[in-house]
Amino acid sequence: MDNPVLAEVTRGSTVESRHRGAAIVVDADGAVVLSLGDVERPVFPRSAVKALQALPLLESGAADRYGLTPAEIALAVASHSGEEAHAETSLAMLRKAGRDAGCLECGAHWPMGEAAARALARAGREPTALNNNCSGKHAGFVCLSCGIDEDPAGYVKAGHKVQQAVRGALEEVTGAAHTAELSGTDGCSIPTYAVPLRALALGFARFGTGNGFGPRRAEAARRIREAVAANPFMVAGTGRFDTRFMGVFGARAFIKTGAEGVYCGALPELGFGIALKCDDGAGRAAEIAMTALIERFLARQAGDEADFAPFRETVLKNWNGIEVGRVRATQMVRPAGATG
Amino acid sequence: MDNPVLAEVTRGSTVESRHRGAAIVVDADGAVVLSLGDVERPVFPRSAVKALQALPLLESGAADRYGLTPAEIALAVASHSGEEAHAETSLAMLRKAGRDAGCLECGAHWPMGEAAARALARAGREPTALNNNCSGKHAGFVCLSCGIDEDPAGYVKAGHKVQQAVRGALEEVTGAAHTAELSGTDGCSIPTYAVPLRALALGFARFGTGNGFGPRRAEAARRIREAVAANPFMVAGTGRFDTRFMGVFGARAFIKTGAEGVYCGALPELGFGIALKCDDGAGRAAEIAMTALIERFLARQAGDEADFAPFRETVLKNWNGIEVGRVRATQMVRPAGATG
Repeated sequence: MDNPVLAEVTRGSTVESRHRGAAIVVDADGAVVLSLGDVERPVFPRSAVKALQALPLLESGAADRYGLTPAEIALAVASHSGEEAHAETSLAMLRKAGRDAGCLECGAHWPMGEAAARALARAGREPTALNNNCSGKHAGFVCLSCGIDEDPAGYVKAGHKVQQAVRGALEEVTGAAHTAELSGTDGCSIPTYAVPLRALALGFARFGTGNGFGPRRAEAARRIREAVAANPFMVAGTGRFDTRFMGVFGARAFIKTGAEGVYCGALPELGFGIALKCDDGAGRAAEIAMTALIERFLARQAGDEADFAPFRETVLKNWNGIEVGRVRATQMVRPAGATG
Repeated sequence: MDNPVLAEVTRGSTVESRHRGAAIVVDADGAVVLSLGDVERPVFPRSAVKALQALPLLESGAADRYGLTPAEIALAVASHSGEEAHAETSLAMLRKAGRDAGCLECGAHWPMGEAAARALARAGREPTALNNNCSGKHAGFVCLSCGIDEDPAGYVKAGHKVQQAVRGALEEVTGAAHTAELSGTDGCSIPTYAVPLRALALGFARFGTGNGFGPRRAEAARRIREAVAANPFMVAGTGRFDTRFMGVFGARAFIKTGAEGVYCGALPELGFGIALKCDDGAGRAAEIAMTALIERFLARQAGDEADFAPFRETVLKNWNGIEVGRVRATQMVRPAGATG
């Protein structure tokens, strides 16, 4: 089955490029609210499941043992832009566990945020692992490891207690087997497991409601959601989509991007979980399709239309600042009647 | 009609992402050698036709009036990385016409090459229009304008004599109407016109052979091909695909990338022209599919296999340098029997 076109890129009055994909919205009992394309094919969720990967950090008591703040918990589920505040917060988390940047195993890369990368270069500095977009997640892994009195060395390996705990949480929350056959190595060197979008959406419906969770896990999920809603800068960065979106919608919509065109999200007031992937891995299409799906279900009151307007289309400008085109969702995913 | 998958991205042993597209190979009489997907749908060729856009610069005599070197002619058809040598060469072209960077109308942007961008930031400098990946093309436009004794001001506008000459050349070479209805504004502010891949491939078959051209145009095409083959660094930059590819194949394969997943090319010894576009605009897939198509036709002698090996797949490494996956062409486009 060919997946439908979820988003189009226009130039002038012509469609220049097209992005296919699959998406699903389910409730916390797993009932399908909306399904587009092949939602059973296993996909790597990549960073879109960082919020689920962080559950053991809170459930284990490690987050409280080290007194992690909501901003630090938000950073633990981030794909951040490597700005100064992100790097400093990662380091603060490590120091609370009596460690430093030397035990991060995510690798160093120039900040994902171009302005942050140039600022670093302008200062004559080189990036460290603290600038890696996953450094908060990894600082969280180190805190988890120390919190359960386990040597953090090798915490990125599938056999380490940290990754075993993470995999266990992912399996329980999504209800999908996370197998070695369908595993790969993520950008930050931890294992990533391909599972169906349907299972990811169920996992986020549960994450958003606590439905089916024990009290400890439900409390951990609630604290992560609240931490991100209160600190949307930490989860991404200046000008980034997730930061801007949750800056407007707060706790009403938890969303998280993943590499290769994946998005996961939860709409707690409706009890819905959402998962989508663009076949081609395009993040520009995934964020626009995600907006359309959320607007479809969340826009119910006067004023909601205006809240969604800045996210509904991406205006493409050229080097002279002239608008040359747009990224827009197709009718397939757009809310009925939306004009955008 | 759904276009076929041209390239896949793997992670571990799983296909993570897929890129659909259309591609066509024709000879200089327009006979179809190979056709995949919808090659009649108009696509914006973007920068993939810079070599055709540069024909008037040579045909008009402007290139000779200002004594442009082969390196400068190669830069006039480039999407360069904005490295120091590119910026300096653009400025040298402008000075030969008695102008400077102030008359460039492409806009400024940070160098496309990340290392070049960071070097500029490290030096405490800001980018100028000379760093724009199109600055060589624009310097060529300024030389053309001055060479025909036309004020270059406004040379990016569709009504200026420069763009009229460029559009005329594109229409004659490709045989396709370039209409206002199917036009858009390119990243560098000049008009871009959507035409079928079939017409683009024919244009490049002619460009590679001179077939159907008058002597003046055939000579201009030959000089552009030779200039690029002798100066592959100028057409792209350090580590870039086009630079590396033509560094190996020289005049045997002229290739040029365009934004949004377009590639055009010419194989002069076979008389073939090639044009392809990935539906989703992905350059990573376009270059791999282009390699497969070229290998399919150009690999005929012992040793050719080894020449193609570095271009056949892109190895994806994570931040710790661990191989995590590959971008590879599908059987649809790969040469029969290739193992890669």
